[in-house]
Amino acid sequence: MKRINIGLLGLGTVGTGTAKILIENKGIIKKRIGAELHLKKAADIDLDKKREVVFEKGTLTKDALEVINDDDIDIIVEMIGGKTIAKEFIIKALENKKHVVTANKALLAEAGEELFQLAYKNNVDIAYEASVGGAIPIIKSLRESLAGNNITAVNGILNGTCNYILSKIANENMEFKEALAKAQANGYAEADPTFDIEGFDTAHKTAIIASLAYGTKINFDDLYIEGITGITQTDIKYAKEFGYLIKLLAITKDLGDSIEARIHPTMISTDNILAKIDGSLNAASIFGDAVGEVMLSGYGAGMMPTASAVAGDIIDIARNIIFNTKARIPIAGFMQDQIKSKPVIPIEDVLTNYYFRFFLVDKPNVLSQVAGILGSYGISIKSVHQKERNPQEGVPVIIITYLVKEAEVKKALKEIFALDIVLEKPVFIRIEDEDTAS
Amino acid sequence: MKRINIGLLGLGTVGTGTAKILIENKGIIKKRIGAELHLKKAADIDLDKKREVVFEKGTLTKDALEVINDDDIDIIVEMIGGKTIAKEFIIKALENKKHVVTANKALLAEAGEELFQLAYKNNVDIAYEASVGGAIPIIKSLRESLAGNNITAVNGILNGTCNYILSKIANENMEFKEALAKAQANGYAEADPTFDIEGFDTAHKTAIIASLAYGTKINFDDLYIEGITGITQTDIKYAKEFGYLIKLLAITKDLGDSIEARIHPTMISTDNILAKIDGSLNAASIFGDAVGEVMLSGYGAGMMPTASAVAGDIIDIARNIIFNTKARIPIAGFMQDQIKSKPVIPIEDVLTNYYFRFFLVDKPNVLSQVAGILGSYGISIKSVHQKERNPQEGVPVIIITYLVKEAEVKKALKEIFALDIVLEKPVFIRIEDEDTAS
Repeated sequence: MKRINIGLLGLGTVGTGTAKILIENKGIIKKRIGAELHLKKAADIDLDKKREVVFEKGTLTKDALEVINDDDIDIIVEMIGGKTIAKEFIIKALENKKHVVTANKALLAEAGEELFQLAYKNNVDIAYEASVGGAIPIIKSLRESLAGNNITAVNGILNGTCNYILSKIANENMEFKEALAKAQANGYAEADPTFDIEGFDTAHKTAIIASLAYGTKINFDDLYIEGITGITQTDIKYAKEFGYLIKLLAITKDLGDSIEARIHPTMISTDNILAKIDGSLNAASIFGDAVGEVMLSGYGAGMMPTASAVAGDIIDIARNIIFNTKARIPIAGFMQDQIKSKPVIPIEDVLTNYYFRFFLVDKPNVLSQVAGILGSYGISIKSVHQKERNPQEGVPVIIITYLVKEAEVKKALKEIFALDIVLEKPVFIRIEDEDTAS
Repeated sequence: MKRINIGLLGLGTVGTGTAKILIENKGIIKKRIGAELHLKKAADIDLDKKREVVFEKGTLTKDALEVINDDDIDIIVEMIGGKTIAKEFIIKALENKKHVVTANKALLAEAGEELFQLAYKNNVDIAYEASVGGAIPIIKSLRESLAGNNITAVNGILNGTCNYILSKIANENMEFKEALAKAQANGYAEADPTFDIEGFDTAHKTAIIASLAYGTKINFDDLYIEGITGITQTDIKYAKEFGYLIKLLAITKDLGDSIEARIHPTMISTDNILAKIDGSLNAASIFGDAVGEVMLSGYGAGMMPTASAVAGDIIDIARNIIFNTKARIPIAGFMQDQIKSKPVIPIEDVLTNYYFRFFLVDKPNVLSQVAGILGSYGISIKSVHQKERNPQEGVPVIIITYLVKEAEVKKALKEIFALDIVLEKPVFIRIEDEDTAS
């Protein structure tokens, strides 16, 4: 029976999970692929740490280059993370004509193009299912199952930390800070949560998805990124009254010659299937001209779910090796000469629906002043909500709009904020409705 | 550029949809695979029918054998359906060493083994993603993405007609017959709906899933199949009070030396992600030892969604042809010599939770009699519900049980029904709870 040797770089959480699958599920994998996957070498700087897996004698090393330069190893699994040493090792592995499996979304989002080119040059594969949505087969679906479709949009909940926090705010009446503390206490958020809650992690995944879905190069700096730190109980409560809830959504759309790719807190209908994705779960809704909508959900992080996706990639490459095939599927989902540079439109040009929350003096005619300014910028009102009365302190007024360009919204809100009757800076949250979905 | 010729048999709904994708999405497919997919011939007995697609001159024929015997054609797409002529054509195509793509679940569930063997013998592929869950990549996920997992359970909502009817009963206070009439009026149910509402369609898909997930041969006659015709407003209403709703669920589990594979109306918690799958949507929850739970949803039927899955299969095979590879992935998900015959346990041996609805005389002590009999069969009660009082006509009493074997349930209910205080035949519905899920 054929034996395929694998080298693993990094024995952190997901690296250890991957080792666990390769060692403990060797039997079931052999039954499925007809070959033996053998974890020949695994490198980590800390070999004294206790890990939940029993390695074969001689597997462990502190020297990553010993793994990368091993002639018997066909597949290098990079589980180090980060953009410096991980990148060097991947480059070295590709130059050694080894296939690479990675979950390194930051690196791929920012240097994917360079690495993919190097892989093509050396006629080897880079597989990265685990970089987006953990266990969920998003990349495989885009590159393979849905390859007969023109993909028109992909919307996703791609960060478990944010989804956990927003679920807590919505379901357990917490404010942001309390929910964040809870997420940290339960291991769903890092001590420094900036990378997650400010939307950068989601943005890396969004860049990868948009490239794959639309066959384009994404300039990561062109993405619009807004985190969830400004989300309050108040807005979540009002959202609910209008039949919406708030998710940190990655929104991507193919507009033909350009694309939309933005990450921000978004109101979606409680009927939207993504509204059902609670807690630390991730999900992606993929829209295609034939398929309509397909929604995939599962754990977006965690030792074994992420390792499951890494193992799926290793198995894919192993099956290519068994059948003497290389680069069977273009790494970025499209043939190299077909990848077009499509600009990401600036957020000001995005056309969507909006939720506004104003805090106004409670007097007759104030609403007409606000509505007048909105109207002068072509902003049509879908519904208005003003429940409470409070002549002393002012009242909140909620407005939901029809489709309008963000540039107009910003100008209108600026003009409205300048009015004497407006007591606080207006809040606005973008809505992703059926008429904007695809 | 390489050109891969495709032959299509049957221009019904999905066949026409497939032609539409091959013709209208030829450009996007070429960009993704670097080759041209060319629909060389398409056969149907009725060529006069108006179809929403413009065929190249010379494509259409009434003679299926002209397609199957065309030496230039590499892939035969069987879209005829049924178990007689479709089977003959598939056999002929395999013997001609052509790859086959089909959505024919009835044929695969009952004669899959025979066809797969023939495909192996001729070193060609049979692809059948569209046979289960329409557009949803269930088969690809089981054979590829999750191949590093021991799959422990797969539960699915696999029939849009049933899900539509059950959603109507639950959400719009209809009774079964009214909901069925609505489904028929809206094109979600056939004039003769037996095949769908009695669970046979779901059962065919269940057999395919269980074979793939657990690497076993399934004897279709061993599946337990119960349809939805007995579901009433009353039970749906009570289910809701206990936090459950009712779905026609395909339940499969790997028990080690045997498997569970059963199709019946099932109560699931409203928190279960499958509870969110409304209307004609399909979904599958796949449980694996690494991945935890992955849930995939989408349209389980319809022209273009099903054709999307067929196109995905064609593209997979085309990529093999481009790279001169055959049978890269075992058709049934496991190497042939690793497929074990595992018996499906009889429904009487299934261990699960139950919902009982009794209609009892409203007198003191009647509950203790019922509970006494349940207890004598080892059936532990989780909760009891008796809201109404009605000394004249009797009252409904709802009981939810802990895990118990179905054989004991049937014996207990028989004994209870014989009591004078029991006015109607007891109703029971199986519950799929977290403690039974995987």
